[in-house]
Amino acid sequence: MAENLTTILKQKANNLRIHSIVSTSEAGSGHPTTCMSAADIVSALFFHAMRYDPQNSNHPNNDRFILSKGHAAPVLYAAWAEAGIISVDDLLTLRRIDSDLEGHPTPRLEWIDVATGSLGQGLSIGVGMALNGKCLDKSDYRVYVLLGDGEAAEGGVWEAVALAAHYKLSNLIGIVDVNGMGQSQHTMCGSDIESYCRRFEAFGWKAIGIDGHNLDEILSALNEAKATEDRPTMIIARTFKGKGVSFLENKEGWHGKTIPKGEQLDTALTELGPLTTDRNFEIEKPAEPAIVAEPKIDEVALPDYQIGEAVATRSGYGAGLAKLGDANPLVVALDGDVKNSTYADQFMAKHSDRYFEMFIAEQNLVGAGIGLSKCGKIPFVSSFAAFLLRAGDHIRMSAISQANIKYVGSHCGVSIGEDGPSQMGLEDLAIFRALPGSVVLYPSDAVAAERLVAGAAAYKGIAYIRTSRPATPVIYSNDEQFPIGGSKVVRSSDRDQVTVIGAGVTLHEALQAYEALKAEDISIRVIDLYSIKPVDTETILSAAAATNDTLLTVEDHYPEGGLGDAVLGAVGSQGLKIHKLAVNGLPRSGKPDELMELHGISAACIVRKVKEIA
Amino acid sequence: MAENLTTILKQKANNLRIHSIVSTSEAGSGHPTTCMSAADIVSALFFHAMRYDPQNSNHPNNDRFILSKGHAAPVLYAAWAEAGIISVDDLLTLRRIDSDLEGHPTPRLEWIDVATGSLGQGLSIGVGMALNGKCLDKSDYRVYVLLGDGEAAEGGVWEAVALAAHYKLSNLIGIVDVNGMGQSQHTMCGSDIESYCRRFEAFGWKAIGIDGHNLDEILSALNEAKATEDRPTMIIARTFKGKGVSFLENKEGWHGKTIPKGEQLDTALTELGPLTTDRNFEIEKPAEPAIVAEPKIDEVALPDYQIGEAVATRSGYGAGLAKLGDANPLVVALDGDVKNSTYADQFMAKHSDRYFEMFIAEQNLVGAGIGLSKCGKIPFVSSFAAFLLRAGDHIRMSAISQANIKYVGSHCGVSIGEDGPSQMGLEDLAIFRALPGSVVLYPSDAVAAERLVAGAAAYKGIAYIRTSRPATPVIYSNDEQFPIGGSKVVRSSDRDQVTVIGAGVTLHEALQAYEALKAEDISIRVIDLYSIKPVDTETILSAAAATNDTLLTVEDHYPEGGLGDAVLGAVGSQGLKIHKLAVNGLPRSGKPDELMELHGISAACIVRKVKEIA
Repeated sequence: MAENLTTILKQKANNLRIHSIVSTSEAGSGHPTTCMSAADIVSALFFHAMRYDPQNSNHPNNDRFILSKGHAAPVLYAAWAEAGIISVDDLLTLRRIDSDLEGHPTPRLEWIDVATGSLGQGLSIGVGMALNGKCLDKSDYRVYVLLGDGEAAEGGVWEAVALAAHYKLSNLIGIVDVNGMGQSQHTMCGSDIESYCRRFEAFGWKAIGIDGHNLDEILSALNEAKATEDRPTMIIARTFKGKGVSFLENKEGWHGKTIPKGEQLDTALTELGPLTTDRNFEIEKPAEPAIVAEPKIDEVALPDYQIGEAVATRSGYGAGLAKLGDANPLVVALDGDVKNSTYADQFMAKHSDRYFEMFIAEQNLVGAGIGLSKCGKIPFVSSFAAFLLRAGDHIRMSAISQANIKYVGSHCGVSIGEDGPSQMGLEDLAIFRALPGSVVLYPSDAVAAERLVAGAAAYKGIAYIRTSRPATPVIYSNDEQFPIGGSKVVRSSDRDQVTVIGAGVTLHEALQAYEALKAEDISIRVIDLYSIKPVDTETILSAAAATNDTLLTVEDHYPEGGLGDAVLGAVGSQGLKIHKLAVNGLPRSGKPDELMELHGISAACIVRKVKEIA
Repeated sequence: MAENLTTILKQKANNLRIHSIVSTSEAGSGHPTTCMSAADIVSALFFHAMRYDPQNSNHPNNDRFILSKGHAAPVLYAAWAEAGIISVDDLLTLRRIDSDLEGHPTPRLEWIDVATGSLGQGLSIGVGMALNGKCLDKSDYRVYVLLGDGEAAEGGVWEAVALAAHYKLSNLIGIVDVNGMGQSQHTMCGSDIESYCRRFEAFGWKAIGIDGHNLDEILSALNEAKATEDRPTMIIARTFKGKGVSFLENKEGWHGKTIPKGEQLDTALTELGPLTTDRNFEIEKPAEPAIVAEPKIDEVALPDYQIGEAVATRSGYGAGLAKLGDANPLVVALDGDVKNSTYADQFMAKHSDRYFEMFIAEQNLVGAGIGLSKCGKIPFVSSFAAFLLRAGDHIRMSAISQANIKYVGSHCGVSIGEDGPSQMGLEDLAIFRALPGSVVLYPSDAVAAERLVAGAAAYKGIAYIRTSRPATPVIYSNDEQFPIGGSKVVRSSDRDQVTVIGAGVTLHEALQAYEALKAEDISIRVIDLYSIKPVDTETILSAAAATNDTLLTVEDHYPEGGLGDAVLGAVGSQGLKIHKLAVNGLPRSGKPDELMELHGISAACIVRKVKEIA
């Protein structure tokens, strides 16, 4: 390795250390010592190994960098400053309310695709981006993921590791910054580089152990990783937290602590020496992009059902997703080994090149979906609604990442029947409603399911579609429209005493209740609230006004956080009387109809409640 | 190995296959082929290797068995029938609404501690039970966990694997039933037993690869596992789904399918032959339990603060947990490498023998906590509120398991400040409210925090305590009581125009708003809703009646699923006017006060809103 190159990169690493310390001391909070263990690695990546155009964050062939150990954000910002992407002065605005240089990286910043800061997610994001590069865009970009060693305890990391090896993602290169220390104590493996290497190798990666402060070793490892064509590579770098400053290096008690201004800061800066201002490194440009025609996006074909035909909304999802795939080449699908239950397999049958089997590993399922969304694809990520909760934190972070990702949870509610509560999604609406900017859609028939799939794809941002297991009658004609934020008043008269609001299976229970009540000369209005978020406040208010201000919500979901709460939240300030039926108690195995009756959401329960409150 | 023993166990395994097929065919649903791959293993465990007393499910020294591949429930029930725990006729009630033999095991059954069926959780539960046996009860029981191979892709499994090796849990023995097939296709590793062995060995386990249908090999491996004293053991068993019936064995398309009654069922039963009814095996009894005195449980010492003293509720949690540990020897604590932020380290300092560091692996943190709770301990499981969501599915299952477990989420809301949104818990109330039987507690000062810790321990079931990062003034006297389901009316007069309901930091914002409004001669009632679930409906209704039916809720949480929705859900049918302030938009880094203002929950925001709605 040219001595000159190593010297230059060492100088840049030193600059990164200086910036990390200065910016965090100015902010009064942050993680300088964790930045300092990574500085040599970041220098080698940003000023030599990675190919990217600092003038163009959107260049399709830029190598990607994901700072999985997101609390090292200051060293990333410092690298941008050294690369000329931002100014050095900008670094002093770290963590201020009016600065985009936040405590952990978010995509308010041009050069950040995904938010990090919740450890253990970055490698999954990288898997998604690597899948895109290898399988979809056929680009030669590489994806580099910098992880901490403490975060390697996160199971999500090992989901990504297993899948990346299985799909031979040689364009994925990880680096673990093994400084031996977590937040509150030493890690399990400490500085045992060999142990890490054995683990990654056992999972099918190439593993290279190095001294993470020796730039020759770092560069050599990166070269070896780039030359490895049949598997991903993990570089395991032995480092020291606080490297470069004597009173910080490998000392306990400095995680998340800044160096106080005054004597300590002065000492640290004196030890590190002055910034070197020579801009004497070359960043390799990415390959010229192929001329790619704008993808041709057609109208999605309409549904083709008969009114009254019994079709599960999960089947409607499968059909709708396949049609969407026909119309839109940007749509991809991912599923967690339940594709024959979610019916994602219908998409796979027609567009196998855009379907990714992610196996029983939901955190990586979601993380990879986020990564694909940040490569311009429109991912539909499916599993049982209950199992999507396994990826709850990844889903939370996808909102902070402002990802254009669509989640699909099947087998919602007690209506799945005999498989019992472990398989029932009963709290999924609560979590998906609580994501800023999300829309939450709950079709009642197969027509609605198909149209909402198309609607979700057209929506820019997170969409959640909730599907049911049992077959239910088709009630809408094939050309019915389902705008997000709308609803359907399916039964209405001048004599309605109560407005009953349901969705999914409970919409059908409400229709049965309507008939039973009609036979007793009691009239109800029935609303299909297929858009749980945003809610059609206007229609609900006008229905309430026509029905003695009395609403009854019914849902195949726990009482907390779902359809009822959505209605309450929308119109709760209006002095209405809003009653809620939802799954009461802890469910169990049984036939769907028996369970709906037992847990308070059947047609008979609706009839009883209407009579009580009318 | 005595030929007689092997023959007997083979016969029993055959019985298990017969029962699995018959019961699922009768039920019309279930997973017989997955039962059949496990039958020889289950036979070896239940009729030879495990020590337990079939007459006494509560014997403290019983070996534990966790069916992590919970969809194989029928084979477990079949083992109980063969062991005389239930009757063979009972098996025909599988999945009926009036039978406790549910589709996946739940603790409605005497011999089930934890519900399984959401794959990848069983090994963590086992870790908790093993920790209890080795470190707390000093019992010689072993914990056996039967996993599927598809579920070994779940990251949660590898969190448990890493920690079990780190703590040298040699009393934990896992068996992976490697039948090569997941639900919808073959697994990543197929039948590559060696690959599995390498992975477990790399993580520090003993790994033994065997033919999972050869009882000599099974017994030999179990003996070797029992004799291994310095590390846990994973037995990797090559098996075939549907083993024993020609048209099922290793055939695609039979996952989750029952054998139709009639010709196919008859053929299968003919191939398997008749049940053998000799009860010619001996189940080894567990060691006689030591005489253990009932644990002495004292009153928890009271808080000791001054009114006005600035103390964060997370600090109150730390102090309260340490005092609880002094008073109650059953209390244990677990944390995910943030103990110096959650202040679980205060418990660790006083009761290090009852503190378990679980590292950055929240799924295993929660799973092990569940396991410990099922050993009679009272676990307090803490991390940042945002990161508990990483274990969302384990938390969901803990409710189905009816676990007596306490969750503690710190760093809630935008009030954490500069670290930014990746670290902020903003949807945690939504998920914890949606657990059947849970209580959700949100102290506003350190006195309340300490008392609610004690209250949570006394409560039988899931409790969630939400703590804040910033220091807030102590407002309650040290002897104040905080009953679950109660609230505190902290400001009240005859002239109140609006009732403002807050908790945590927003209670303090409400108190500041009170002062500002008072200066303008506007009087508000202020309620501290420290019990978010159950909600103090009575107090809220009487306050509403006194304040023009007008309520304003304020919370450091997203609008969906939190304090506001809790109030709306409780009193929404009463025709009140309920307004909600919550964190609007996607948060960012900044100072706590700036963020509360920017996102709509500060004192100034409350003042503005009160004036608008009064």
